[in-house]
Amino acid sequence: MKKIILILMIAAFWNVTFAQQKPCATASKFGADDSVGNLNYITAEKTLAASKLITKGKSYRLAIETNKDVPAFPPRTFSITVLQPDQVGGESLGPTKTTYNDDIIMGWVGIGTGIDGLGHIGIDNLYFNCNRAADFVAANGLKKLGVENIPAVATRAVLLDMAGYFNTDIVKEGTAFNRAEIEGAMRRQGIKSIEKGDVVLFYTGWLKLIGKDDKRYQNGNPGLGIEGAKYLASRGVAIAGADNENLEVVPFEKGAGVFEVHQILLANNGIYIIENLNLEEMVKDKAWESFFTLGAPRITGGVQAIVNPIAIR
Amino acid sequence: MKKIILILMIAAFWNVTFAQQKPCATASKFGADDSVGNLNYITAEKTLAASKLITKGKSYRLAIETNKDVPAFPPRTFSITVLQPDQVGGESLGPTKTTYNDDIIMGWVGIGTGIDGLGHIGIDNLYFNCNRAADFVAANGLKKLGVENIPAVATRAVLLDMAGYFNTDIVKEGTAFNRAEIEGAMRRQGIKSIEKGDVVLFYTGWLKLIGKDDKRYQNGNPGLGIEGAKYLASRGVAIAGADNENLEVVPFEKGAGVFEVHQILLANNGIYIIENLNLEEMVKDKAWESFFTLGAPRITGGVQAIVNPIAIR
Amino acid sequence: MKKIILILMIAAFWNVTFAQQKPCATASKFGADDSVGNLNYITAEKTLAASKLITKGKSYRLAIETNKDVPAFPPRTFSITVLQPDQVGGESLGPTKTTYNDDIIMGWVGIGTGIDGLGHIGIDNLYFNCNRAADFVAANGLKKLGVENIPAVATRAVLLDMAGYFNTDIVKEGTAFNRAEIEGAMRRQGIKSIEKGDVVLFYTGWLKLIGKDDKRYQNGNPGLGIEGAKYLASRGVAIAGADNENLEVVPFEKGAGVFEVHQILLANNGIYIIENLNLEEMVKDKAWESFFTLGAPRITGGVQAIVNPIAIR
Amino acid sequence: MKKIILILMIAAFWNVTFAQQKPCATASKFGADDSVGNLNYITAEKTLAASKLITKGKSYRLAIETNKDVPAFPPRTFSITVLQPDQVGGESLGPTKTTYNDDIIMGWVGIGTGIDGLGHIGIDNLYFNCNRAADFVAANGLKKLGVENIPAVATRAVLLDMAGYFNTDIVKEGTAFNRAEIEGAMRRQGIKSIEKGDVVLFYTGWLKLIGKDDKRYQNGNPGLGIEGAKYLASRGVAIAGADNENLEVVPFEKGAGVFEVHQILLANNGIYIIENLNLEEMVKDKAWESFFTLGAPRITGGVQAIVNPIAIR
Repeated sequence: MKKIILILMIAAFWNVTFAQQKPCATASKFGADDSVGNLNYITAEKTLAASKLITKGKSYRLAIETNKDVPAFPPRTFSITVLQPDQVGGESLGPTKTTYNDDIIMGWVGIGTGIDGLGHIGIDNLYFNCNRAADFVAANGLKKLGVENIPAVATRAVLLDMAGYFNTDIVKEGTAFNRAEIEGAMRRQGIKSIEKGDVVLFYTGWLKLIGKDDKRYQNGNPGLGIEGAKYLASRGVAIAGADNENLEVVPFEKGAGVFEVHQILLANNGIYIIENLNLEEMVKDKAWESFFTLGAPRITGGVQAIVNPIAIR
Repeated sequence: MKKIILILMIAAFWNVTFAQQKPCATASKFGADDSVGNLNYITAEKTLAASKLITKGKSYRLAIETNKDVPAFPPRTFSITVLQPDQVGGESLGPTKTTYNDDIIMGWVGIGTGIDGLGHIGIDNLYFNCNRAADFVAANGLKKLGVENIPAVATRAVLLDMAGYFNTDIVKEGTAFNRAEIEGAMRRQGIKSIEKGDVVLFYTGWLKLIGKDDKRYQNGNPGLGIEGAKYLASRGVAIAGADNENLEVVPFEKGAGVFEVHQILLANNGIYIIENLNLEEMVKDKAWESFFTLGAPRITGGVQAIVNPIAIR
Repeated sequence: MKKIILILMIAAFWNVTFAQQKPCATASKFGADDSVGNLNYITAEKTLAASKLITKGKSYRLAIETNKDVPAFPPRTFSITVLQPDQVGGESLGPTKTTYNDDIIMGWVGIGTGIDGLGHIGIDNLYFNCNRAADFVAANGLKKLGVENIPAVATRAVLLDMAGYFNTDIVKEGTAFNRAEIEGAMRRQGIKSIEKGDVVLFYTGWLKLIGKDDKRYQNGNPGLGIEGAKYLASRGVAIAGADNENLEVVPFEKGAGVFEVHQILLANNGIYIIENLNLEEMVKDKAWESFFTLGAPRITGGVQAIVNPIAIR
Repeated sequence: MKKIILILMIAAFWNVTFAQQKPCATASKFGADDSVGNLNYITAEKTLAASKLITKGKSYRLAIETNKDVPAFPPRTFSITVLQPDQVGGESLGPTKTTYNDDIIMGWVGIGTGIDGLGHIGIDNLYFNCNRAADFVAANGLKKLGVENIPAVATRAVLLDMAGYFNTDIVKEGTAFNRAEIEGAMRRQGIKSIEKGDVVLFYTGWLKLIGKDDKRYQNGNPGLGIEGAKYLASRGVAIAGADNENLEVVPFEKGAGVFEVHQILLANNGIYIIENLNLEEMVKDKAWESFFTLGAPRITGGVQAIVNPIAIR
């Protein structure tokens, strides 16, 4: 029995001593203090170069609306209330009879167009850059990796028309986008490369289902596969987005984990995810490359944020 | 007595018959269906021209954080809660042990950096473009003028360094910015003109008080005066913003109504307002003119929105 | 014109001077400081006498459940969230591995079994005991008439089996209960009198519709009529309740105002209202007279409260 | 090494096979389907007997108020909002000019006077009656052990004046009430016994600190010790309550776990806990034994409930 105890002691010692010195699986290439991952690739040079894509001045509002009816991941709910403080009975304020409305939100953040922060998805409670849940997750807000840290985003967006690539209106749920499909779509559209700090947007036609077949919208979607996610990571992509609820292909690929693409992007590679984007008009205009700006509301400690990115060309 | 009754009857008749044919005080110059006011001035040409202001690629994140501690107009409160649905007891999901955090917001929208929609402030319950409160305000969201209507904003921003103009760090509360001060600041900074569709940002140094003297931050601020508001309106400004809670000078100017500048901008002229902006770094860089983008979260029926505009030059 | 001005001045003077001396329409018979109306009738003597009705020791839980699915008056919504603060990743607290759940509520109070406080319904913004809305209603809670003022209720309840009286399972919507019906039901059940400080409960069979025909449940119900409300007031009733959403008959009686019975009970007479009671078992047991206790949660400034009265006999 | 593997295999087998047949540590004595623990002791006979304690008709409202200012366990927050739906601009409804207020709650349930349901505290995620967290805890409400299951409570309450026993106004924090103190207080007050189905209320004078020394109120309190909790369990007590935030002594006794008294009462013995009770008037009146009624609001899936018990004698 002594031998066993010895082995266990050695194992425990190794665990405590050496494990901490190994770089953990989610370590950031930008250093131990990094909390924004590949957004670091969006340098002034990158922004300046991307701004040259503005040649027409046409802006695209990429958000759908957030409300109680838009399909949302259960058990998320949302409500807004409009009220008129201190004006009961038709009171108005002062000589110019000022009246006003105010609004209250009660609900889950991940409804409508939203960005997943790096504190959203982890691997067995290990989150981006070796952050352990027990160390940074508090009931009243994340102490690290919160969305308030997201810097101003102004970079190049590449729009991949996967519906066009598959020659269909709405790409079938469960269709995985991996390297072959991504490069195929790029070739078809004449996009030469995906580069460090880029935003990659996948158009699947899926948004057309909202209000028509919400159940189908929620039960799956085409999207990024595991190899595709790793490919985007290898290119240094900053943000990946799609016009559906998961970005990631659902049902998951054979052998894949639950939201493993989310794990690969967010936890392993510091790549942000934007879901439920409205890319219809961009596709119509063949706005394959554009200047993409995003200012995420800075709610302290937020896991996700309701956003409305603007693409311009 | 008959005469009186006759007069009253005539008045009532006139009121009912003719008043409705008169354009109302808040009519939009963009027509009866307009719901976004001077944002209509932000055309593709305007956006394209403004994009030429990007010469360095430097982006500015203009939002402050929104949380329970940031000074807010009473009785507004805010809270965020982070939780781990379906992971009680350390459960993880699937073979790759996926774990996740989600977040819930409970609170008033007008906290932190926010845009006032055109449904925020009215004149005796008459809001922008002749919309009567009774016709469009519902407890579960505005039926018109909600923030979900705000288009993609990509235009020129003009930053007025009022602290510099007054040769001080923090401009005194109650200091009104009217035509003389606005044009004075422009001259000082070499800004030639304010134009249709511009965003005008006032720097007052006021943000420096947050966390140091929250009480002072909330009890007043320097800001736009009535004549100044009318002047901006005459120039066709789309959005006016400031680095304090009200944009508008508080205490109000002598003879002014309660938030009358808000009435002039929002209700009479369809000019949006952004409050609590962080303009510190822009001033440090003398980024007097920049490319300004804003994508307001599209919460259906929302009065205001928590935003994070991005300025770039 | 001078005459008109004179008349107007006299009118204004009269208004200011004499109007305030007239007792207002909602004055309490318990004095200017009263904020709980007929609950004042529930004296120690009343409670002691009512306690004698306990002869079997059987208790009745009179509340239905409150949740997102129970039919509610629009636009009321409700949600509960359960979370495990500080236990992310399966952490437990201390040597005995303590774990815990906590819960958050987001929603409107008036869902499920609820008591209407005296600040709920007014007559042109005049509420119980001459309280004008502008004087006591604040966005962050009532400054008077809030439910935190409701004293301990322990009194006699009289249950009127209106379904039995009309010889039906579910009394038809729009059926008004006035003096004739109330006294008829009393006679049928052998109830001799309704007395000061009593709770009067109307059984209509209506609760059986929940989950079966929610739409019908919400679109009307049998209930108290105007004459019936005045009759209860004349008897000094403290609380009136029913097993449906409004207590009051809906559609309203011919010529009646909108929720005029609510006005008569709450505003004019200081009689509380409890809605959505579960009276099924009491009727089955013919528990016509019982000892009724109610402790309303004391949320400061609350208009209504989610309650669960207990009847015992 | 084979031996080790064999031992491990045997252990695993035993674990799977026999462990499930052993009654678990939190098994209910009322059977596998039980979800309300010792409330089962409150039979009709018990209620009837307790009702005889009503000899004066005096009722005691035992709740303190729930609001944003009352001291609460972090990070709990609370807010109420009062609004006037569909009455913007002073609109009223119908010919009798009906106006109304409605209210919204956003906040944590465990604030003010509250009952801890049996799903509140567990031992390593094992809750009352062998319920494992993973099986019954959902983000949108408990699937078992929710407060909606709490039956009507009408039973005997025994009030122990611990401040009197210790001959002080406010018993010092950290003072544990164990068998000796409990029986000592009973003797001093002439209480002969604690019986099955009783509610035991501890008066510590602690409530006097609210509004005067909120920090002290929150940082500890005198209360039930581990041996005392087991003693109450041995007597078959249904509910234990106190006039402070934890009922349980804080700082915990030497060698005790974190909220181990909560574990003993809730998880091991199915005894409910009520905190923040106002017992001042009962003590003044020496209302040592009384008839105690409680109707907990039936929010489906709720962990705790904001309550207002009524004691009568």
